Amino acid sequence: MQNKEQLFKNIIAHSKEYGFVFPSSEIYDGLGAVYDYGQYGAELKNNIKTYWWKAMVQMNENITGIDSAIFMHPEIWKASGHVDGFNDPMIDNKDSKKRYRADNLLEDRIAKYEKEGKTEKAAQLREQMEGFLKADNLSGLKQLIEEHEIACPVSGTRNWTDVRQFNLMFSTRMGATAGENDVVYLRPETAQGIFVNFLNVQKTGRMKIPFGIAQIGKAFRNEVIARQFIMRMREFEQMEMQFFVRPGTELEWYAHWKEARLKWHLALGPDQARYRYHDHAKLAHYANAAVDIEYEFPFGFKEVEGIHSRTDFDLSQHQEFSGKKMQYFDPELNKNYVPYVIETSIGLDRMFLSVFCNAYTEEQLENDSRVVLKFHPALAPVKATVLPLTRKDGLPDKARAIMDSLKLDFNMQYDEKDSIGKRYRRQDAIGTPFCITVDYESLENDTVTIRHRDSMEQERVPVQQLHDIIGRLVSWKTLLQ
Amino acid sequence: MQNKEQLFKNIIAHSKEYGFVFPSSEIYDGLGAVYDYGQYGAELKNNIKTYWWKAMVQMNENITGIDSAIFMHPEIWKASGHVDGFNDPMIDNKDSKKRYRADNLLEDRIAKYEKEGKTEKAAQLREQMEGFLKADNLSGLKQLIEEHEIACPVSGTRNWTDVRQFNLMFSTRMGATAGENDVVYLRPETAQGIFVNFLNVQKTGRMKIPFGIAQIGKAFRNEVIARQFIMRMREFEQMEMQFFVRPGTELEWYAHWKEARLKWHLALGPDQARYRYHDHAKLAHYANAAVDIEYEFPFGFKEVEGIHSRTDFDLSQHQEFSGKKMQYFDPELNKNYVPYVIETSIGLDRMFLSVFCNAYTEEQLENDSRVVLKFHPALAPVKATVLPLTRKDGLPDKARAIMDSLKLDFNMQYDEKDSIGKRYRRQDAIGTPFCITVDYESLENDTVTIRHRDSMEQERVPVQQLHDIIGRLVSWKTLLQ
Repeated sequence: MQNKEQLFKNIIAHSKEYGFVFPSSEIYDGLGAVYDYGQYGAELKNNIKTYWWKAMVQMNENITGIDSAIFMHPEIWKASGHVDGFNDPMIDNKDSKKRYRADNLLEDRIAKYEKEGKTEKAAQLREQMEGFLKADNLSGLKQLIEEHEIACPVSGTRNWTDVRQFNLMFSTRMGATAGENDVVYLRPETAQGIFVNFLNVQKTGRMKIPFGIAQIGKAFRNEVIARQFIMRMREFEQMEMQFFVRPGTELEWYAHWKEARLKWHLALGPDQARYRYHDHAKLAHYANAAVDIEYEFPFGFKEVEGIHSRTDFDLSQHQEFSGKKMQYFDPELNKNYVPYVIETSIGLDRMFLSVFCNAYTEEQLENDSRVVLKFHPALAPVKATVLPLTRKDGLPDKARAIMDSLKLDFNMQYDEKDSIGKRYRRQDAIGTPFCITVDYESLENDTVTIRHRDSMEQERVPVQQLHDIIGRLVSWKTLLQ
Repeated sequence: MQNKEQLFKNIIAHSKEYGFVFPSSEIYDGLGAVYDYGQYGAELKNNIKTYWWKAMVQMNENITGIDSAIFMHPEIWKASGHVDGFNDPMIDNKDSKKRYRADNLLEDRIAKYEKEGKTEKAAQLREQMEGFLKADNLSGLKQLIEEHEIACPVSGTRNWTDVRQFNLMFSTRMGATAGENDVVYLRPETAQGIFVNFLNVQKTGRMKIPFGIAQIGKAFRNEVIARQFIMRMREFEQMEMQFFVRPGTELEWYAHWKEARLKWHLALGPDQARYRYHDHAKLAHYANAAVDIEYEFPFGFKEVEGIHSRTDFDLSQHQEFSGKKMQYFDPELNKNYVPYVIETSIGLDRMFLSVFCNAYTEEQLENDSRVVLKFHPALAPVKATVLPLTRKDGLPDKARAIMDSLKLDFNMQYDEKDSIGKRYRRQDAIGTPFCITVDYESLENDTVTIRHRDSMEQERVPVQQLHDIIGRLVSWKTLLQ
């Protein structure tokens, strides 16, 4: 049994070697904390999106989906609190010119004390640090760095600037009007695009409370320390849904979505031990309940989805900052109110990583070993690959005809190179659930073998039945009903 | 017959009123040249993406799809020529502080001369302007503005700055390292994400030339003058494919893709008169052939897709700037070379607008009128809506049971409010191809009527057959085979 660190390294290497995830701009030596999805990664990611969109938008009559822009009016981020509150405390070393998160420097020192057995000193420093963080006391943080004689890991000196707040939003300038204040931000979350469109969707879609608005899209955060592969990226994708409810019913709906969302994850592969709820001990100022769904990655349990009862905070803020009423007329109560909101929020890239880690399996076989990605068939990038046993006697023609009859409905591959065993391994490595082999018997009685990825068992079936068999096995029905 | 300008206004109004396109950040009085897709717009856009992805990636064994990040290494945009060459010549009025494109000011003046019958003067000014633009002669442009006494439309003064180049790329700063040059750009095109991943995809996907790499994604251009609704936005989406071929075969493949791409557009609705080729008279310095596929919008023929023979320009530039070999070993020729590239590039938002304009129909009926969106059924946002004739006697239960049996595979709606005629009109207005009506006969013999959007004809069919009938009518097969 290898250790988890090695396992994670293998997973990252496999994801690159087999075209799932590439470091961005690799030929230019990469760009920090940004990644590209390769040919199989793009398909897997699209399938995860489809699974979410179907489960949320298509299966629920009262949830609808939108696609709002990354650029939004800058005032929106004042209303949401991101301009003032979305900061990390940063400190620069004047000699190395390197910048650090002040709390990270202190965390590292606490870890050092703990390692040295100075538990009391560690606990005291943690308590002081947390107090200063909570009070936004930046000079307090600087004082702790000086008192504990923390030096820059690069220059080795203690020649520090003051601690300053560093906003995590990327900003740029729009338009070409000279002299105007034309700063816009790259959205740090997709949720606000839903809130500001709340009335447009409610009215044009004739929606009645309770109802939800969902969307999938890019968001951006200028993370100082980006780590753990695609877990924390500067450019990432979210799948968020805001569910608008009558005030007073929000905790009921919160309980509903808490349960429904875990079920959605578990349907993919019912290994319950790898998922857990993590209730937030401290709530954000706008929330009255919040829970994370965590997955056990090789580096530990981490959030893949959050479910938050956000009260009427966001809509009320927009009402105040925009001067427009953000209210719903409830015909049953015969009155207007600002709805309460339950949010479900997934980091799509984390979800991708959890699916990938969950599927990744190193197997020792009798006389062989293999790496196999045991994706749920509905998520697998390639659904089936057609393999002629040999490259002669008309087997390739027969194989291509089968492929052509299936490719409109399923993402297919054709492979005629190397031994059949080698070809099976290649398909295992990208997680193709079914290999369809065309052999000499196929020419005689119009049958083929289907080889199942996980069991490696083969069955012989009539070519006529292939479309139905594959269709049934990769259907969304297996996940959504 | 109304005029085209009024028609386009009606189209824009309809797209907002029925939840297709909303002005971005509308409650904050909008953000220039940015739009959000509403609940039906998001579905239509997704369906257009699926149509393209299926036609390009799924149906072609030798084309594969990726999803690269918006953020890329800044050196990439030097290699591509965007840092130095992606500029507009801008001039500021010192009194109004307004900024203009110098060539737009001159174009307006030329139009004025033409209107006044001063054709010779107009022609002379155009010739001078085009010469200066070609030579990047900025002071020449300034001189023309002064000579022709052009005043600022806002301040009315001729108090101008010099003409300066204004780069159309949005820039931001990444990371938190102090003192470093950390500018990154929002990509102005998705194509470069394909070029820099060329070797990663070719090797991990075992691709053999000729082969293509496709991707769909956001791109950004800081357009000074953004106009015509979603035609020219600052944030937009592209669907691009780069097809890598052996040098010397590129014009053959160019002809192939030129034909194949027009066919793809025409399959949606075979009104050939609304599409035309527009060959580029002047080629970009890297191209040896280029054509646009234009669609006749209410405001005239405009490009929706470009097909370009880009030679080996991009890969050679990246080879030079990155210092990495961007070559392919051709086993048949037994030699290495930098492949040539045919690009197909669609503006997804323009494509959306062309589909929307093409579908939008104002119809005078015998005793009524209607606005109907005649989308191809495979692209329609909602595939079918189930309508109980009345809200009693068990008709709603029967209707919901039918909806539940179809919603996993088709995006469905249920509507029981208002008269059946009113409900049909609502579905016409969002382009739903089929209305399934549950009436009293349905309870007796398990049949329903299907009402067809375009012909408004109804037919009675057994409930058992609904899934097959709808499935056949909305299938991608109708477009892709």
